[in-house]
Amino acid sequence: MPGTSTEAKNSVPLNYGIVLYPGFQALDVFGPLDAFNTLSLLRPLNLYVIAETMDPVSTKPPVPNPHGSQFAQSVLPTHTFANAPPMDVLIIPGGIGSSDRGIQSSIDFVKKVYPSLQYLITVCTGAGIAARAGVLDGKRATTNKRQWVPNIALRDEVTWIAHARWVVDGNIYTSSGVSAGIDVTFAFIDALYGSEIAGTLADILEYERHLDPNWDPFAEKYGLKDSK
Amino acid sequence: MPGTSTEAKNSVPLNYGIVLYPGFQALDVFGPLDAFNTLSLLRPLNLYVIAETMDPVSTKPPVPNPHGSQFAQSVLPTHTFANAPPMDVLIIPGGIGSSDRGIQSSIDFVKKVYPSLQYLITVCTGAGIAARAGVLDGKRATTNKRQWVPNIALRDEVTWIAHARWVVDGNIYTSSGVSAGIDVTFAFIDALYGSEIAGTLADILEYERHLDPNWDPFAEKYGLKDSK
Repeated sequence: MPGTSTEAKNSVPLNYGIVLYPGFQALDVFGPLDAFNTLSLLRPLNLYVIAETMDPVSTKPPVPNPHGSQFAQSVLPTHTFANAPPMDVLIIPGGIGSSDRGIQSSIDFVKKVYPSLQYLITVCTGAGIAARAGVLDGKRATTNKRQWVPNIALRDEVTWIAHARWVVDGNIYTSSGVSAGIDVTFAFIDALYGSEIAGTLADILEYERHLDPNWDPFAEKYGLKDSK
Repeated sequence: MPGTSTEAKNSVPLNYGIVLYPGFQALDVFGPLDAFNTLSLLRPLNLYVIAETMDPVSTKPPVPNPHGSQFAQSVLPTHTFANAPPMDVLIIPGGIGSSDRGIQSSIDFVKKVYPSLQYLITVCTGAGIAARAGVLDGKRATTNKRQWVPNIALRDEVTWIAHARWVVDGNIYTSSGVSAGIDVTFAFIDALYGSEIAGTLADILEYERHLDPNWDPFAEKYGLKDSK
């Protein structure tokens, strides 16, 4: 079982999972996954796309579009919350759907699997899902800056760090909003697989990384403060 | 019909399409689409996800993985090349699949619909698909910098600009590799919907845009030169 021994915790992760729910934010999912997609060409890596059912999961927010737009993408799960295999790393994206009542099954899944993980990565309001699962209790974490106030209110037991592109506490990596998921993913790859491979991947994706976890003009823009 | 009158060409685009093919690069698709997903909450906007058939389209490259990795995502089309409705804007992503023989149906589709479009946006090696469709002939364009040599060899009639994050020529926006698709999309939104809304979207996505189309450390790294 991953995460049950020191050896397992020190090994390089092999099996990744990502939680999908209706109204996920597309870039929260595919920024990190495309870095890992590319890493999977250089290292052995498996992915489980996990949702409540095997039905396609849409980015469409679970609220009416104010302009009548029909603009969404649907992604196919490979597993459900009930039959997902053991995994080493779980990624939790954010999105408008993360504050919908339908998110409870995702919260329950995170609570169930966290003890068996080597690492947890959250993007954007995905931190709110992890917080409600209780797995951020006593930890430092960050989340979306535009949705800061409602998200940090989800769990008082978390030390919410306002001025951060991403935060690492123990085996949990949390990022700021949406595109910050790309930076936290590169930070994770850098820490676990090495700087050289992280640099190679950034070159392949032609991506200019934010290397400073404290870089955060958005926290400054909104005048945000840490929760404690 | 979009694009058949001066009025249509001057109107703000409403109907967007994106081409998917096996082995597309996920971030080429979802960087641009997530900016448009978010724009669709602020303006009326529709999307058609278009592929050869209605079967799910996987990011899995159409070549064996050298490490046995099983790491891919599958996206559901909404239309096929045969039944796609008229659209104002078409987006062509890149990816390893763009150099596979299975790409011919995508090339044929681009050739067929380009005359009816208001705008064409290509990301990464998606420019190679547009080039092979002949729609970049006589135009300035750019593409992926790591795959520069094989891509510019696809079509001598294109003036390939090496040192560019993105290039605009007439109604065609072409970007450099992968993450450059986010920047060209913001440039497109800026030009058509205005700088204020582009700035708002970047804030929502917590994205630091590259605002200079000539910013390109990757062309410098590989010492690339324009094709003419």
